[in-house]
Amino acid sequence: MRLAVVGAGAVGRSVLELADEYGHDVVAVADSTTAAVDPDGVAAGEVLARKRETDTVGDDEPAAALSAEYDALVEATPTTLGDAEPGFSHVRRALERDRHVVLANKGPVAERYGDVRELEADSAGSVLFEAAVGGAIPVLSTVADLNGQVTAARGVLNGTANFILSRMAAEGLGYEHVLAEAQDLGVAETDPTFDVEGTDAALKCVILANVLYGGGYTLADAAVDGIADLPGSALELAAEDGRTIRLVGEVSDGEVRVGPRLVPENGTLAVSGTLNIVQLETDHAGRLNISGRGAGGPETASAVLADVGRLPPR
Amino acid sequence: MRLAVVGAGAVGRSVLELADEYGHDVVAVADSTTAAVDPDGVAAGEVLARKRETDTVGDDEPAAALSAEYDALVEATPTTLGDAEPGFSHVRRALERDRHVVLANKGPVAERYGDVRELEADSAGSVLFEAAVGGAIPVLSTVADLNGQVTAARGVLNGTANFILSRMAAEGLGYEHVLAEAQDLGVAETDPTFDVEGTDAALKCVILANVLYGGGYTLADAAVDGIADLPGSALELAAEDGRTIRLVGEVSDGEVRVGPRLVPENGTLAVSGTLNIVQLETDHAGRLNISGRGAGGPETASAVLADVGRLPPR
Repeated sequence: MRLAVVGAGAVGRSVLELADEYGHDVVAVADSTTAAVDPDGVAAGEVLARKRETDTVGDDEPAAALSAEYDALVEATPTTLGDAEPGFSHVRRALERDRHVVLANKGPVAERYGDVRELEADSAGSVLFEAAVGGAIPVLSTVADLNGQVTAARGVLNGTANFILSRMAAEGLGYEHVLAEAQDLGVAETDPTFDVEGTDAALKCVILANVLYGGGYTLADAAVDGIADLPGSALELAAEDGRTIRLVGEVSDGEVRVGPRLVPENGTLAVSGTLNIVQLETDHAGRLNISGRGAGGPETASAVLADVGRLPPR
Repeated sequence: MRLAVVGAGAVGRSVLELADEYGHDVVAVADSTTAAVDPDGVAAGEVLARKRETDTVGDDEPAAALSAEYDALVEATPTTLGDAEPGFSHVRRALERDRHVVLANKGPVAERYGDVRELEADSAGSVLFEAAVGGAIPVLSTVADLNGQVTAARGVLNGTANFILSRMAAEGLGYEHVLAEAQDLGVAETDPTFDVEGTDAALKCVILANVLYGGGYTLADAAVDGIADLPGSALELAAEDGRTIRLVGEVSDGEVRVGPRLVPENGTLAVSGTLNIVQLETDHAGRLNISGRGAGGPETASAVLADVGRLPPR
C-alpha cells in the first residue's frame, strides 16, 4: 500500500524506516512544519538524515502530505486530549477522501470515538489503531478475533510508570530518585505527567472500553489515580506480604479505572521494567495474557504496519 | 457461515454448542460412525443429548457430512501421525470442492503440510488451523499479523506435562504418583504417551516450524525428549537454584526441539498447572509472550470459531 505518514517522532520515523520491509511504500511524510511527497516513494534514508540534521523532513508544507495520493494515512502525531486536534482533522480528511487510517495517536479514538466511527461509516476507508493500545502487543486484533467474547480487560499499560515502580521495589529507592534516573535513561520524559499520573494508561483503557462496549467513553469517564504520591513505604509493606504494586488499568462492568494496585510479587501482572501486559477475560476461552514491549519506535511501528497489513485492499 | 463439523470429541461438541453465538450454522456433524445433516442447521441440543446417551450423532453415514452443502469444514477428528488419515482425506475432499477448512486436528498440518498447501493452492477454499497450536492462545494469527517478522518461537505447549511438572515441584512427589493423580482428575488420559513423551508438544512445534519456515517439517524432524524419566530429585536440585523444570518446545534456526529445560522459578515460561505459554521473538517488536488455556473443549472451539471468522466469504 501507499502510505502517508503524518508525525515524525519515534513512531513515524520507524514506520518510514520499516515500511519497505513489510511491502509498503511511503509516498508522503510530514512533521509539524514540513513535508516530503513523492508518488514513487520518498527516500527513507534521506528523509531520516534530513530530520536528524535540520529537524525538517522536506521542502513541502505539511498539508501536501495530507492531500497526497496515498492508500492509508498513518496518524502518528502526539496524542492530545479534548478535541484531539490536529489528529482528528487528519483522520476526517483521510476518511472523507475514502482513504484508510491507521492511528498510533490515541487522542481521536479515546476522546472522539463516536465521531471517528461515524466518519468511517460514511467512508470507503477503514480505521485501525492497534498501536494506540500496548505498543507491540496485539491487544485489539486479539479482541477482534475473539468476536465479542472478551468481557473484561486488565493490564499494565504504561512502561514508564512500571519502570519506576519496579525500580522502587527492587532498590528500595524513593519516587523522586527513581524518576530522575528514568529521565536520565530516556525512559521518562522531561514532563512525565501523562505517564505517572495515569493519563496515558487511562487513555488506552478508554480505547479498550470503546472497542469492548461499542463507544461512549472519553477520559472524563475514567477513574484515574497515578503513582506520583506513592510512598516507598507502601512498596516495602507490600513486599513483606509477598506482593508488589503496579499501575493497573481495568475495563470491566462498563467502568474504566486506573490506579496503583497490590499484585502478587511473582504474579502475571507483575511484569518488570518497561514491559506491558494485558489480560483479557473471555466467555469461553478463559483468560488470555499477552505481554511485550508497550512502547518504542520500532515496536509501535510494527503494530502500525501489522494494521496496514490487515486493511482491505483499495 | 455454514459449517460441517467432523469429529464429535470435546472440541467438535463445543463447536456445535458455540457456533450459533459466533453467528454460524452447523449444517452437518459426524462422529466416527454416524452423522446428522440438516441444510437449515442441525439442532445442537438434540445432537449433543443423543451423543451423550447413545454415542451416535444421527442416522446418517459419516460420509453424508463430508458431502453436505457447507462453506467450511471443521476437522476435529483425533490427531494421527504418518499419513494423518482420515483427517487428511477430509481436508482434501473439502478443498477439492472449493470449501474452506479449519483444523483442530494437528496431523495434516504437522505431517503433510506441503500436501495441504498444494491442495489449497488449487482450491478456492482456504485452510486455517489456530486451534491446533496452543488451544485458546492466538499464536498463529499473531504470527500471521506480524507478517514474516517472527524469527523464533518457544513455549510450554502441553498442559498435561505442565500439570505433572508443576505438581512434582510444588509437592515434592514422584512422577508416577502425580501422573495417577492427573489421570484421576481427567487432566491426563489413560494412555498419556502423547503428552508425557513430548509428541503432542512436538507436533505443535512442527506446525509452527512449517508456518515460520514455509513448510518441510514433520515429526521426524523434531528432536524430542519427554518427562517420563525425569526423577523428582531433578526438580529438587532445580529448586535449590531458584529454578524449576518445564517441558519446553523451541523452533529456531531451522530446528525443532522439545525437552525438559531448566527455567527461572518465577520466570515467564514457568506457567503453572495446565496453562500454556508461547514466546515469539520478532525482528522489530521484541519478544511477545502469550499465555492462556492450551486445551479444553470450549477453549479450543473458540480458536476454531475465531478462524471461521477470519475466512474470506464464499
